[in-house]
Amino acid sequence: MKQIILAVMVFAATTIQAQKISSPDKNFEMTFALSTKGEPTYALTYKNKPVIKTSKLGIDTKDVAPMLDGFTIDKTETATFDETWQPVWGEEKTIRNHYNELAVTLSQKAENGRYIRIRFRLFNDGLGFRYEFPLQENLTYFVIKEERTQFALAGDHKAFWLPGDYDTQEYSTVTSKLSEVRGLMDTAITPNASQTPFSPTGLQTPLMMKSDDGLYINIHEAALVEYSCMSLNLDDKNMVLESWLTPDAIGNKGYMQAPWQSPWRTIVVSDKAGDILLSRMIYNLNEPTAYEDTSWIKPVKYCGVWWEMITGKSTWAYADVPSVKLGETDFNALTPNGKHAANTAHVKEYIDFAAAHGLDAVLVEGWNVGWEDWFGKSKDYVFDFVTPYPDFDVKELHRYAASKGIKMIMHHETSGAVRNYERWIDKAYQYMVDNGYNAVKSGYVGDIIPRGEYHYGQWMVNHYLYAVKKAAEYKIMVNAHEAVRPTGLARTYPNLIGNESARGTEYESFGGNNPDHTTILPFTRLMGGPMDYTPGIFQTKISAYNPDNNSFVHTTLAKQLALYVTMYSPLQMAADLPETYKKHLDAFQFIEDVAVDWDQTWVLEAEPGDYITMARKAKGKEEWYLGAITDENTREATFTFEFLPKGKTYTATIYADGKDASYDNNPQSYTVKKVKVNSKTKLKQKLATSGGCAISVK
Amino acid sequence: MKQIILAVMVFAATTIQAQKISSPDKNFEMTFALSTKGEPTYALTYKNKPVIKTSKLGIDTKDVAPMLDGFTIDKTETATFDETWQPVWGEEKTIRNHYNELAVTLSQKAENGRYIRIRFRLFNDGLGFRYEFPLQENLTYFVIKEERTQFALAGDHKAFWLPGDYDTQEYSTVTSKLSEVRGLMDTAITPNASQTPFSPTGLQTPLMMKSDDGLYINIHEAALVEYSCMSLNLDDKNMVLESWLTPDAIGNKGYMQAPWQSPWRTIVVSDKAGDILLSRMIYNLNEPTAYEDTSWIKPVKYCGVWWEMITGKSTWAYADVPSVKLGETDFNALTPNGKHAANTAHVKEYIDFAAAHGLDAVLVEGWNVGWEDWFGKSKDYVFDFVTPYPDFDVKELHRYAASKGIKMIMHHETSGAVRNYERWIDKAYQYMVDNGYNAVKSGYVGDIIPRGEYHYGQWMVNHYLYAVKKAAEYKIMVNAHEAVRPTGLARTYPNLIGNESARGTEYESFGGNNPDHTTILPFTRLMGGPMDYTPGIFQTKISAYNPDNNSFVHTTLAKQLALYVTMYSPLQMAADLPETYKKHLDAFQFIEDVAVDWDQTWVLEAEPGDYITMARKAKGKEEWYLGAITDENTREATFTFEFLPKGKTYTATIYADGKDASYDNNPQSYTVKKVKVNSKTKLKQKLATSGGCAISVK
Repeated sequence: MKQIILAVMVFAATTIQAQKISSPDKNFEMTFALSTKGEPTYALTYKNKPVIKTSKLGIDTKDVAPMLDGFTIDKTETATFDETWQPVWGEEKTIRNHYNELAVTLSQKAENGRYIRIRFRLFNDGLGFRYEFPLQENLTYFVIKEERTQFALAGDHKAFWLPGDYDTQEYSTVTSKLSEVRGLMDTAITPNASQTPFSPTGLQTPLMMKSDDGLYINIHEAALVEYSCMSLNLDDKNMVLESWLTPDAIGNKGYMQAPWQSPWRTIVVSDKAGDILLSRMIYNLNEPTAYEDTSWIKPVKYCGVWWEMITGKSTWAYADVPSVKLGETDFNALTPNGKHAANTAHVKEYIDFAAAHGLDAVLVEGWNVGWEDWFGKSKDYVFDFVTPYPDFDVKELHRYAASKGIKMIMHHETSGAVRNYERWIDKAYQYMVDNGYNAVKSGYVGDIIPRGEYHYGQWMVNHYLYAVKKAAEYKIMVNAHEAVRPTGLARTYPNLIGNESARGTEYESFGGNNPDHTTILPFTRLMGGPMDYTPGIFQTKISAYNPDNNSFVHTTLAKQLALYVTMYSPLQMAADLPETYKKHLDAFQFIEDVAVDWDQTWVLEAEPGDYITMARKAKGKEEWYLGAITDENTREATFTFEFLPKGKTYTATIYADGKDASYDNNPQSYTVKKVKVNSKTKLKQKLATSGGCAISVK
Repeated sequence: MKQIILAVMVFAATTIQAQKISSPDKNFEMTFALSTKGEPTYALTYKNKPVIKTSKLGIDTKDVAPMLDGFTIDKTETATFDETWQPVWGEEKTIRNHYNELAVTLSQKAENGRYIRIRFRLFNDGLGFRYEFPLQENLTYFVIKEERTQFALAGDHKAFWLPGDYDTQEYSTVTSKLSEVRGLMDTAITPNASQTPFSPTGLQTPLMMKSDDGLYINIHEAALVEYSCMSLNLDDKNMVLESWLTPDAIGNKGYMQAPWQSPWRTIVVSDKAGDILLSRMIYNLNEPTAYEDTSWIKPVKYCGVWWEMITGKSTWAYADVPSVKLGETDFNALTPNGKHAANTAHVKEYIDFAAAHGLDAVLVEGWNVGWEDWFGKSKDYVFDFVTPYPDFDVKELHRYAASKGIKMIMHHETSGAVRNYERWIDKAYQYMVDNGYNAVKSGYVGDIIPRGEYHYGQWMVNHYLYAVKKAAEYKIMVNAHEAVRPTGLARTYPNLIGNESARGTEYESFGGNNPDHTTILPFTRLMGGPMDYTPGIFQTKISAYNPDNNSFVHTTLAKQLALYVTMYSPLQMAADLPETYKKHLDAFQFIEDVAVDWDQTWVLEAEPGDYITMARKAKGKEEWYLGAITDENTREATFTFEFLPKGKTYTATIYADGKDASYDNNPQSYTVKKVKVNSKTKLKQKLATSGGCAISVK
């Protein structure tokens, strides 16, 4: 009896008022409890395996008393929610939002009963939780010193990680055990135009992990609004991750005004890798669409005057002068350097190609004055977004493109000079409307101005959303590069049709991406929203365009086609040059055909870092598209077609690596062949090293 | 012989290639020379007395080689300039711009011949010089670490100084020897909403000094554009002042892109105090007016809903809630606190008063939502500048004011949230135009957002001018409070009709200003441009309005009238409440009559810190206004009228301190009497302690 009583007392002593919820299918169980010091804690299991061991929650503050301990539970409320909704664009036509919720209201007696709320939502695909700060006498304004959300992991998991950084996500993903992070950090931090690593064990989110017992665990955040972007810091003794927010210029990590809330901290878990890719939890945690009318938001397939500058074949700049001043330099008087790609005649070639080959739009970079000295100078008044170079006739190109049914995509490189961009943004958006543009690729290359702010601090998080919301006033879609990585906000603001915010195709021209790069990105970067990865490079040897550039794309041509399926995006670029595509129109047919919006998505096989095979059904059409990719290893991909309507036969066009293809020696070896398929078909397809296979089914 | 040769060699060894210029009247002589280390130096004498001993010049840089030494002279060019110009508004109808110029081009061999230019202009009232950075291969972008301009003084002068600070000028002026600055600094730094003192011997400009041998010396800057505001740091061992620029959030002091230049560093000197007040050198160093049409820029006399809030009688806020969120809070649902002065009926009372008593306009503060929590919260989205409170009917007040020939003056308190202001500024200015406003008082109370920036850094200097230039697009005049102190930019941008940027009348309600305060300000703050000092307080005991406020105005009523003459401004407020003015309409007659724009100005007697007696002729009218003020001492002011046309007699109305008046015990004792005057008249008038006398002559 004594022993039993002792055990009960011990239990009571270590946890107070434990609250539990399960996911609807009961696979997950989440336990909330206060420690004896009144610290809020939570723990998560999946199919009875520990995912998150008891972990502390709280907010450390600068100017008011911290929200870390001394809590008691005032109230707990539970609820269930089950609804389906239709995204404006996406991997599925409908998404089910089904969770069990626990909201705990906690107060600190020592702070005159000041209270906060922590809300947990447990889905069949994982857990989301956030802090809420209700308006009250004792809580109006406060400054966050650091958020102290822990994720105590159950083991030294395999992780697919990026060095934690306040300014860039463009590092190559490192695959290692968590215990190896510290030793690998230095080599992982490769040079970038703007970078601020912050810890020898700092990690970005989304963070993908796999436990030794086969659990896939993904940590990220949802609905990052008016808050600082979260990275994670790993305590590699105890395998505990803790939130690490991005500071501002004076070191503070957030300025809060109640009522407000933190973003949702998300933990997606499954024992099947494909479930991670099919999780829509992050969108489900975001608010429904804010716009009444979304008819002007349309997925886009495009080509663009871009890759030829990335490879060094052409320049963004019109002239080769060391310095220009907008409003003072007479660009008409400058000597053109003869390599300026964004000129009227050349852009028309892209428009012609787009019109002839099923693309919707043409992006043009380098169209506007200021590129001569845009980079690396901390230049404030760097662009005005409304003045074209002398050789770029906006009106004529608008007319020409419209006559061919093609839209022009605008480019707003801000160079990180964000006050300057905001000064021009209304005029810039109006200029777009006046000249037939309805989509813009924006960029934030280089350190942020106001100097001292970081790309991922609250200041810039506020700006990115400001730009998106204002764009909606003009019915403009936004594709923001170098911005904070997405957190599902495209549900609320569906004109945010893309971000880069990771290492994209351009790095193939800057030394190359790892062969397994795109087998990882869907498990990491894509968790919060689509990526403008800009695939479709057919000429993988960059020296063919620029003899001084010996980089090469670390994939086969066929893998580039497969990426249109495995790298979901409502905005897909055929990134190579028309002259190259014209040499491979048989392969290009896949890009011409592939949809950019979907009714349904299936993951046939997947292992992060190794391979992905997916299938998707085009929205509103009897067409399906499949893609398989592999890493540096060859493999045999298996395509099944169970999703096809039974009893019907379809024609599948298979774009595959040639027998002797390899990404480094023979990337352009591919075959195109047609076969008949039905719902019972099983296709095995050999993939080359860093190879792929793309299939269209009609 | 040997000795003579030795002396010559010594001279040659210490100075290289000395260049001299004189002022047109030859009173000043400026010598430029390079030291043996190739450091640029200059020295200045006035009537053969040393003003500036040999002092070094240069720029210390962060990212390129410094511009401090190793110079040789490439070229020297001299020129003379003599022209008169007409300001849009001012103390005179015409201003003569007459100087001798020396431009020295210097290069550094060690930097591949990189060159800069230092341009000196020597006027009859003083010296101005600036650094110029011509565009060249070797010089495009550079970051300033510190400017190293020295002013080696000839003695331990008496100085009228403010503690050097990156965020406020609202300290009381301290009068002391320079050697005493260090010991007085701590007590001089009184609390402020936003302040960042930087050195135990830091000083602001304009800095007014008087040498033991009777030279008045004023140091300031002219044409502060796209550069950081200069303060001075005193080496109190050697009596050398050195420029100390305002840093940004990361400690850098300027981001330059050649071709560019520093502001002019100005040294105004005379042996007559009045000459300092009549110097127009700072305007002469600024560029001519940038605007083609200036007909919409008009000096303004106004009253306003303001003092009753400053005194605490009323509130800016509509409701007493701790926190509001624009766009979310329903202001109609809030309970009014009953003390909100900016309500339609009450504003109409001010309009009635203005119309009945010769004023042009009415300012209203507290008209717009957001005042409940505007201060001290580092709130970003604090105001929108376009949404009135429920009790402020913009359209009705526009109609009512227009029907009485009165303009409304807008108020834009930014609360230092400058990104927010810039996001709203076009809408805010358009709202003004749509509702009949053509002038705005803006404010920057509190620490600047983006956090880490200072009120006087390059970032904010850029913003203030941006707001003024954009206002001109809407034909709006700007009166910017808490902004950087002016540097003569109103010549180029004459819609900048005022700044506060010093300790104004409001401080009379926050504890009081020193009795000698306004005998100093024209020698300091007013050197670079007018101040919206907002005089005219008739009820000097604040407790009459708010029993909890025991402050009192440290002047007599008559001195408040004199300030309309001695504190030049094209924008003059009758700051007290109409109900108080109605009790003293005889005194108010002076305010009703006094002009705000002038053909000519004379200083009859002046000593900084002690007394000022001035006379001015109204622009385009046969009217003159005179004012005399004194410090804490009584005195007899002497008014002469030699400026009157000979042979004509005029009626002078004299508003004087009563026999027994004093600022602390009997401030409201005054007399009004009329006398006949002509050009030969000499009037002696007794002034009470902190008293004054105002005279209108018609």
